[in-house]
Amino acid sequence: MRPQDIIRRKRDGGELSREEVASFVDGVVEGRWADYQASALLMAVFFNGMTTAEMESLTQAMLHSGEVLDFSGLPLPTADKHSTGGVGDKTSLVLAPIAAACGVAVPMISGRGLGHTGGTLDKLEAIPGFRVRLSLEEFRGVLSRVGFAMMGQTETIAPADRKLYALRDATETVESIPLIVASIMSKKLAAGLGALVLDVKTGSGAFMRDEGRARALAKALVRTGNSCGVPTEALLTDMSQPLGEAVGNAVEVVECIDIMRGEASEDARPVLELSVELAARMVALSGIGGTLEEARSLARRALDSGAALERFRQNVEAQGGDPRVCDEPASLKDLTLAEEQIKSERAGYVVAVDAAEVGRAVAGLGGGRVRVEDQIDPAVGFMARARVGQQLRAGDTLGLLLSRGGSGAEAAAARIRAAYLVGDEPPAQSPQLIKEVIAQ
Amino acid sequence: MRPQDIIRRKRDGGELSREEVASFVDGVVEGRWADYQASALLMAVFFNGMTTAEMESLTQAMLHSGEVLDFSGLPLPTADKHSTGGVGDKTSLVLAPIAAACGVAVPMISGRGLGHTGGTLDKLEAIPGFRVRLSLEEFRGVLSRVGFAMMGQTETIAPADRKLYALRDATETVESIPLIVASIMSKKLAAGLGALVLDVKTGSGAFMRDEGRARALAKALVRTGNSCGVPTEALLTDMSQPLGEAVGNAVEVVECIDIMRGEASEDARPVLELSVELAARMVALSGIGGTLEEARSLARRALDSGAALERFRQNVEAQGGDPRVCDEPASLKDLTLAEEQIKSERAGYVVAVDAAEVGRAVAGLGGGRVRVEDQIDPAVGFMARARVGQQLRAGDTLGLLLSRGGSGAEAAAARIRAAYLVGDEPPAQSPQLIKEVIAQ
Repeated sequence: MRPQDIIRRKRDGGELSREEVASFVDGVVEGRWADYQASALLMAVFFNGMTTAEMESLTQAMLHSGEVLDFSGLPLPTADKHSTGGVGDKTSLVLAPIAAACGVAVPMISGRGLGHTGGTLDKLEAIPGFRVRLSLEEFRGVLSRVGFAMMGQTETIAPADRKLYALRDATETVESIPLIVASIMSKKLAAGLGALVLDVKTGSGAFMRDEGRARALAKALVRTGNSCGVPTEALLTDMSQPLGEAVGNAVEVVECIDIMRGEASEDARPVLELSVELAARMVALSGIGGTLEEARSLARRALDSGAALERFRQNVEAQGGDPRVCDEPASLKDLTLAEEQIKSERAGYVVAVDAAEVGRAVAGLGGGRVRVEDQIDPAVGFMARARVGQQLRAGDTLGLLLSRGGSGAEAAAARIRAAYLVGDEPPAQSPQLIKEVIAQ
Repeated sequence: MRPQDIIRRKRDGGELSREEVASFVDGVVEGRWADYQASALLMAVFFNGMTTAEMESLTQAMLHSGEVLDFSGLPLPTADKHSTGGVGDKTSLVLAPIAAACGVAVPMISGRGLGHTGGTLDKLEAIPGFRVRLSLEEFRGVLSRVGFAMMGQTETIAPADRKLYALRDATETVESIPLIVASIMSKKLAAGLGALVLDVKTGSGAFMRDEGRARALAKALVRTGNSCGVPTEALLTDMSQPLGEAVGNAVEVVECIDIMRGEASEDARPVLELSVELAARMVALSGIGGTLEEARSLARRALDSGAALERFRQNVEAQGGDPRVCDEPASLKDLTLAEEQIKSERAGYVVAVDAAEVGRAVAGLGGGRVRVEDQIDPAVGFMARARVGQQLRAGDTLGLLLSRGGSGAEAAAARIRAAYLVGDEPPAQSPQLIKEVIAQ
């Protein structure tokens, strides 16, 4: 099959066969396709899209470009969650222990933060000693003993995605829904999952701010996952403000442990609610929880009984971290930090928050990465304390900035203050945390 | 300017500035743009097109990527013709001497045949000794002494086009009108023209078979040429059957010399008519022929008086060829060739001809190139003797095949026979040689 013929078919709006898609992916990995041919096809896909069958073919070809993990030897069903990313989005640290406590094995392969979003691996590394670089043997061992394990992407998983992502990044073809779908699904399915729940975020802190585009992505992900034979559901969730209270690495871990200790602040409630719902759906999709309602009860019980915290403790210990953080989460806080209340300059209602700008402000303090090679300062962060719709007096706090002081702190404070829009009238409606369930 | 930003703007349907287009072209030539970024932009242009201003910017940037010839020192106006290519399309050899005899200098940089079309350079090389590889000094000297000169593309003219064409060829972005326009115009305008006439072909032997697309290309070419400050016109002409009688290299030269000797066969009349019309427009656009009608008279007189033949003879001599071909054109024929009448198997009317298939049949005999590196056999060819609309009895000749015999000849004869569609009813209308004049 000549690359030109495949490019032409997609360029002219045709549907590529499974063999044509595989020939593209294999050709890119093996060098039979020139990079300039691959990028021409990617741009044609950007314009003409892909059918569900094509997305399935692309996902399968990309996931089979590397190692595919197999946990079928485990006596438990496997499931995972993937979030499209947001600000303060820390549910993985809560839902994985819940799901594990309910009898679902969660082999979670996570990412680093970049730009305005944090990353699960960076958060975990805020725990002294925690290792996210595991061999596959170690990963399998932790998963088997604890019920969940957390590690970073390896070189051997879906190498086609790394190659294609680099090309997409350089050619403005990142924002294509079929390419996003195949990138997410190939990496997730390479982890050998039995079920997958997606948290597709929309709003000011999401990659897809537009709700219509986010819904289209969610539908394409669900169709592709099911088409690949993995029961898949998606929640379309609110990212019009930071999720929960903490934005930053150590502070987000503290928030999660507080939730698992039954000590969640009111501002942290959305994290608890969303984590329980996502975990319940993982349990129900795995076929062990009965109805969804029964799975929700199971999940809530795992949290309330302390079983989830116990799993988390076991995981921290198994991955080299200091399990005492589970007893003294406040020990993760750095007492040398400068704390500054960010206050509203006027009375009124919180009409909107530019959540991405909040994320970038924290990243600018060292809490995230502007460039891939940046070092993380795990301690800095922001505690969001005003929610959309909330009424404020002049001088009321918007949140608490945790920084190393100096001009960097002043810049971050100014950015965050500007990210909160306070107006005379309350917004027409407060954002709904879970906007829609997309089950097929 | 980052390549990504430029790709994004075009991807999203925006208009690129002159600086952005120049940054792309210079970046490709100088290596600041990766090939995969260039091909992504080319595909985005394929989908979203270009405005006239963008086409002008692209043409200018490409033509200034290399040497730009300057004949402003000549005491004559300069003009040229460009054809989008067809089968039996030999007008250059007639119109250049006519225009020269009328006082227009024609610095013609031509191409080689490929696929179903012939190339002017290959035809000229059928004349013993004729050299098409001239230094720029030689080219200028022949132009100055004879009034027209013919040579091949040099490495120094529009190098950006070579680079971009190779990418387009490998990425299925050849058929984009703005990219075709910039490729044609950058090479033509780099020859330092004062005026340009385009012969845009449509029909079964043209690259743009569809008349609507050919018209759109003609309009884009004319708008871009005028926008670049070069008075430009286009004729939309018929390529639904071979132009004139001869298809092949030596036989086409013979047909042209016959025309200039006043000995044209009836089948060769369309070549004469089109050559005179194109030459007249070059003369009129150069501002030396008065009205178009007066320019037509001038052109016809140049032909009828033998002045054009005299210019042709001078050119052949100046470029190293044997000028006796002008007295004895039949001397170019190879008497060892096998001649075979291709006959109609049935009575009826010629309804349609697949002219591209006739071209490919001749190329298959060695008269053209299937691959760029193929060697040409100048002698072989086909003399087309049945025109669309003509009534035939069973056994009447469709044309004469000139070949080296053997199975190759049999295959060519079969292809040509199949390329002529003979039906019971005459076609609704006979094709009109000049379908439309596009002057702005």
